This record gives sequence, structure tokens and C-alpha cells, in this order.
Amino acid sequence: MAIRSSRSRGSSMLCENSHLFCNIAHLIIYRNAEHWRAEGKFVYAVFYALAPYLQPVSCLGHHEGRHSIMRQLTFIRPNCFEWHDVPAPKIQSETDAIVRPLAVARCDLDLYIATGAVPFPGPFAFGHEMVGEVIDAGSRANVTPGQHVVVPFQISCGSCTSCRRGFTASCEAVPAYSSFGLGGGRVEYGGALSDAIRVPFADFMLVPLPHGIDPLTAASAADNIPDGWRAVAPQLAQYPAATVLIVGGLAQSVGLYAAGAAVALGAGRVLYLDDNRANCELAKQMGAAAEPLNLGQGREPDELFEIVVEAAGSPDALAFAMRSCRPNAILTSVAMHFGSTTPVPLMQAYYRGLTFHTSRASARNWLPDVLGCMACGKLHPEHITHKIVPFAQAADAMTDSGPKLVFTPD
Amino acid sequence: MAIRSSRSRGSSMLCENSHLFCNIAHLIIYRNAEHWRAEGKFVYAVFYALAPYLQPVSCLGHHEGRHSIMRQLTFIRPNCFEWHDVPAPKIQSETDAIVRPLAVARCDLDLYIATGAVPFPGPFAFGHEMVGEVIDAGSRANVTPGQHVVVPFQISCGSCTSCRRGFTASCEAVPAYSSFGLGGGRVEYGGALSDAIRVPFADFMLVPLPHGIDPLTAASAADNIPDGWRAVAPQLAQYPAATVLIVGGLAQSVGLYAAGAAVALGAGRVLYLDDNRANCELAKQMGAAAEPLNLGQGREPDELFEIVVEAAGSPDALAFAMRSCRPNAILTSVAMHFGSTTPVPLMQAYYRGLTFHTSRASARNWLPDVLGCMACGKLHPEHITHKIVPFAQAADAMTDSGPKLVFTPD
Repeated sequence: MAIRSSRSRGSSMLCENSHLFCNIAHLIIYRNAEHWRAEGKFVYAVFYALAPYLQPVSCLGHHEGRHSIMRQLTFIRPNCFEWHDVPAPKIQSETDAIVRPLAVARCDLDLYIATGAVPFPGPFAFGHEMVGEVIDAGSRANVTPGQHVVVPFQISCGSCTSCRRGFTASCEAVPAYSSFGLGGGRVEYGGALSDAIRVPFADFMLVPLPHGIDPLTAASAADNIPDGWRAVAPQLAQYPAATVLIVGGLAQSVGLYAAGAAVALGAGRVLYLDDNRANCELAKQMGAAAEPLNLGQGREPDELFEIVVEAAGSPDALAFAMRSCRPNAILTSVAMHFGSTTPVPLMQAYYRGLTFHTSRASARNWLPDVLGCMACGKLHPEHITHKIVPFAQAADAMTDSGPKLVFTPD
Repeated sequence: MAIRSSRSRGSSMLCENSHLFCNIAHLIIYRNAEHWRAEGKFVYAVFYALAPYLQPVSCLGHHEGRHSIMRQLTFIRPNCFEWHDVPAPKIQSETDAIVRPLAVARCDLDLYIATGAVPFPGPFAFGHEMVGEVIDAGSRANVTPGQHVVVPFQISCGSCTSCRRGFTASCEAVPAYSSFGLGGGRVEYGGALSDAIRVPFADFMLVPLPHGIDPLTAASAADNIPDGWRAVAPQLAQYPAATVLIVGGLAQSVGLYAAGAAVALGAGRVLYLDDNRANCELAKQMGAAAEPLNLGQGREPDELFEIVVEAAGSPDALAFAMRSCRPNAILTSVAMHFGSTTPVPLMQAYYRGLTFHTSRASARNWLPDVLGCMACGKLHPEHITHKIVPFAQAADAMTDSGPKLVFTPD
């Protein structure tokens, strides 16, 4: 893993790279992969379907003159990160806040971006699961310096129709896929693995960290914990005490958080299936039953569930998840299926009366519920954190295969 | 189309056949078809996934001794129906009612069963969309002789958890897939193309026909009208005035009823797409805009919709329907996809945040709303009825290609 500081060269290289990146309009990448989690060969595609570019935009606040310099971990290409010196962000609007990280978690997707298994083109500022401290705030940001806050990874205004409907992943006030630390959007919002980020719409975006919760515990509440939560919580609200199956795998921590959330929310039997034995043990720590998935050995469902979560990311696992559904079950896929198409047993789905949902999580929408459940002591995401490493080692640690890395600023 | 009366041979042949049929436990038929609606070659399968058989049961009430005889249209095999003389049904329970048909409609699926395009094994009593007159009723049936009622096609008790949740297609009080006139269930409930049927759970099942509605107009309210309704009505209740797209085709009348329901319920733009020009004209009569689908000419979506209905039954049309979804849209497939699997662009679905539902309609659940909308003069299913024929010609007419046949007793 290359780690290189561009501090000596100032920020010009970053700006050039940033402009180059920003001029990508519609990114559609097809790539043949030898194997995807041993599920066979797939042609897979990443569709960003970006809004057409008119001009590159940076939200860092470094286009107004002289600025102080900060460090920023930048994804260059698979297995290559660089620490860049970039202008520190500044307040640009009365609803902005500047937040410095206290804890940053690695999203499940980050691992695959880091290894190149999922082809995201660099360069872009990296890291998007963050708990931080407010260090500056606009007059209408509704937060004050010193406050500890969770920063949901997607940019959302809270006022548009999508946000008011709870679809904060699809905020209409910003270009599609606008987020911290993931690239792909029209605007570069910076990454959590830096000295600070500017949070727009801070009056809506930022959620105070409840008293008594360690930032290390809550870092993944910015994305992966609500991602698991949304796959079971509204479903359990609709059908209290329903039985829950999680087919784990690709989206490692999301599946495990879903298991923990189901237990915390009083589901009936909660079963977590995964060929990763270590993750099965973590699921047990979250209070779920756990077994190997064993699809390779021809496993078929021996019980049916009312709520099913597919976090495995393979067509076989998805089909198994569908076969595990009771009539009128709700199946949520929290994994990404990278084939241009995926074979789905729709006739079985038809006869079972299936409701299937797949999406990026609307993290901000679920964040208050998630933090409330953590504050009440029912949800313990800290069980899933397998390693805590300082920022300085973040690049090297990024391809660690465990379910949840958390980084702390040096 | 063979039409043969077995009256001269009494009812013994039917009973033998009925028992033979009833002993089928799990019916899984794989069949290679040359073409499915010109969409290319598919291996397709019909999965009934029936509950295991313990013993054959008839609900006709003809196993208690001497009975009067009635006629019953029986599906023998593709392109072969026979009128059989069978025992007339009798009240068996205080919640039973006996209903004689006033109007019977052909469900979209019936056409494909009749032609053999969808392999349903005969023999079984045929016809399951019916408005009738109560001619006998148990003491707790909550209907009285002379009442005109709509008979939902699935058997549902109204009391079990599934029924109380609105999933009357999955009633837990009867074996899976129990219905009139479709075969496939453990119990033979008889068919609508007969002199009478016994309706169990009549106190819940039967819905009075509102005053002023012609039985001919309401016959398909037993199945296909609520099937279209459920694909737009709850979605429009969630998002009033949302835009609606219907991709029509295989489920001919269901797609057209969905278009009419969307208009009646105050949707925004309602667009119906179908390569069948005549059905496009019918959609216009229902108040929708309509255009050819033209997937063969490489049509791509030029607008996106919040509510999408896929009634086409082809993988290409389903993929087009998904590409036509706005972020966080709700897509309901009312068609059957007969491949063992169907290629689905799940990555697109993920980035759009799609909720996808596919199921048999829970007809009884939606019936009061459907009839209410018809009674208010907003929904006009009579536009879709292309031909009315007497029972005596039902077998010959059954393979007519139009969207909605209605049969009247001789």
C-alpha cells in the first residue's frame, strides 16, 4: 500500500487531479473479474449515472484565497493511497459546520474499493463514516463548537421532497450520489480521513452523539449501522416480533449490524448465516443464532422467515434468501450485485408474494433511531469492531479482511 | 376446442379424475417453449409449491349421498374443455353460501391455460371471476338468498393472521393456493363456469354488489380488477398524485385496469405502453396516455415515474420498467415470469432505491375499495370487456385473444 505525502508539493497537484476527476460525466465501467467471492465469473458494472457535468465544483472552501493547509487521505487507485496536503475547509454558508474527526470507520464498500474488487476510479478523498467534534459553525448550523456529532455520509438538505419522505440518500438539493469520501459525485465534499470536513446543511445533517457513547462505538453510525438497521427496523415495526434471517457475506458489517438491530428490536428468532466463521461468532455476540451458510454443500432452507436480509452479494445467496421467505415476507438486499443483470427466481417470488427492496441506505433518516437504541444499551456495534488503528496506519490497514476497522486521528 | 358432455355417463368419471388430480402433491413442470411472446427461448417452470397431500378433498358437498346434478365446465387439457354433469353443491357449514353465476369473466391467466402456453394440468373445474346471486346460505353466512355478490377467486377465512394483514391470497385456514376454477390446490372448490358454487367463509368472502352496477361490469372484480388496483392504489395513497407508468402485455386486462385505477385515483401523468395497439386504445378509454412499447426498436425511457407497473411478462420489459423508475420508486410486477430465473438489473435497482413487489393479488382485500370506486363512477372496467358470450359458447371462445371475455349463463 503506497503512502506518500504531497505536502512538499503543496495543493496544486490535488487541484489538478480534482478537476480531472470532476470532469467525469457519466461513469460506466465494465470489468471482467476472475472471481467475485468465489461465485464464478461475472461481468460487473458500476453505474453512477451521474448528473451531467457543467463545471467542476469543490466544497472545501479553498477557492477564495489563502487558506491553512490540512492533511487528507486520498484514494489514488487500488492498493494506492496518498496523504495529500490540501486547503482546510472553511464555513461558506450560515448552515455550514466544520467538523474534525474523533473516530472514522471503514465502510464495507471501502475494503473493495481499496483492493480494486469494485472499480471506483481515483483520485478522491477517502473515508465517510465519522464521529467528530464541531470546530466551527455558521449562524444557522444549529450546532456549537465542541459538540460531538455523527456525520451521516450522504449530503442531504432535510427540506426537499425526498428528504422529507425519508430518502435522504436521494436529496434533490445536491447532485446525485453526493457524499463524503466516496468519489463519484459531481461535488468533492472531502473525506473523513482528514483533519476536518465542511458539513453543508449542518442544521439537518448533524446528529448529536448521545451522552455516554464513545465516538469509537458510533463511528459506523454514519453509514453501515443504519444500513443494517433499515433492513429490519421498519419491517419489525410493521410486524412486531417477526422472525428474521440474515444471509451474510459481502456486506460484512451491515449484515452483522442487521442481526444486532433485529435482536435489539425484539424480533422473534434471529438467524445469521455466513461461511465466515469469525463473523458467525460476532453475530452470536450480537445476540443472534448463527450457522455456516454452506450453499456450496447444497444447503436448502429448512425454515422460513418473515423478514429476510441478503448481505451476501451473490446470486446464489439471493436465490437462497428468496427461498427462505415465508409468504408475504419482506426481503431487503443490502449488498451490491455487480452483474449487468442478476438471475432472480421471480416465479418463486410471485407465488410467495415477495416485497423486495434494494438501495443505498438513507443513513441520516435512520440515525436518530439508531443512536437512541445504542443509548438505551440495546444495540452494541462495538462488538463488530475488530481493530482500531491510528490515521497514520490507515492506508496500510485498509485492506484488512475483518468486518470493521476504526481509525483514530493521530 | 373440444366440447363434450359427460351427462350420459353420470358423475363417476369426474370423481375419478378429481381424485387423480387431487393426489398430485408437488407439481413442478419444466417445459421448453419455442417462444414466449416473441421474447426468445426460455425454459419456464410453474411452481405451485403445494402443501403436501394427505388426502384428496372435495368441497362440492357431493360426498354425503344423493344430490341433484348440475353442469360444470372442466378444463381437460390445452384446447380441450368438457361440460361435465356433477353433483350440485350444498351448504356444509353455517358460514357457507351457494351462489349461482350471473356473469363470469375470463382471467388473463385463463387464456394461457386454455392455449397451453402456461402448463396447468387438467382436469379441473374452470372459471374464477364471478358475480352471482346467493341461492342458499348458512345461518351465519351473513348473506341472504337473492343478494347479488362478488365472489373473490381465492378462498380466505378473514380471521387468520394473513387475512387480517390483508394477505387474503395466503389464507392460513385453507391449503395454499385454494381458489375457484384454477386447479392446483389441495381442495377442489369448483369453478365459476357452472350452475353454482359453494362459497366457504361466505360471511367474509362475499362482497355485496353495489346498487346500480351491472354484474357484467363487475365480474372481473373477483380477480383482475383488484390485481391492477393493488399495483397503484396503496402506492398512490402513500404518494398522492404520483406519476404512474404501466408496461402492458402478458397480463392484458390487469395492466389496463391498473391504468384505469391510477386515473380514477388522481395520479399525475398515467402512461400505458403496449405493442398491442388495440389495448393502447382501451387504455386511452380508461383515461391514460398510451403509446407503443417498441422495445424491439430499442426504446429507452425518456421520462421517469414514481410508480411503475410491469404487466408485460418479459425480462426485457421488466428491465425497461426498472430503468423507468425514479429514485425510490415502487415497482409492482403483476405478470408471471416463467423462467426458472429472470435476469434483473439489480445494480440499477440498488442505485435507484427500488421497492419491487410481485405476488398474486389478494383480491378479497381490495374488493371493497374497487367496488366503491366503481360505484362512484370513477372506474369503468366495462371499457375493457371486448366480448360477451353465453356459457354454451364459453369453451370455443376461451382462446379469443382479446383482453376480457365475459360469459353469461344460458
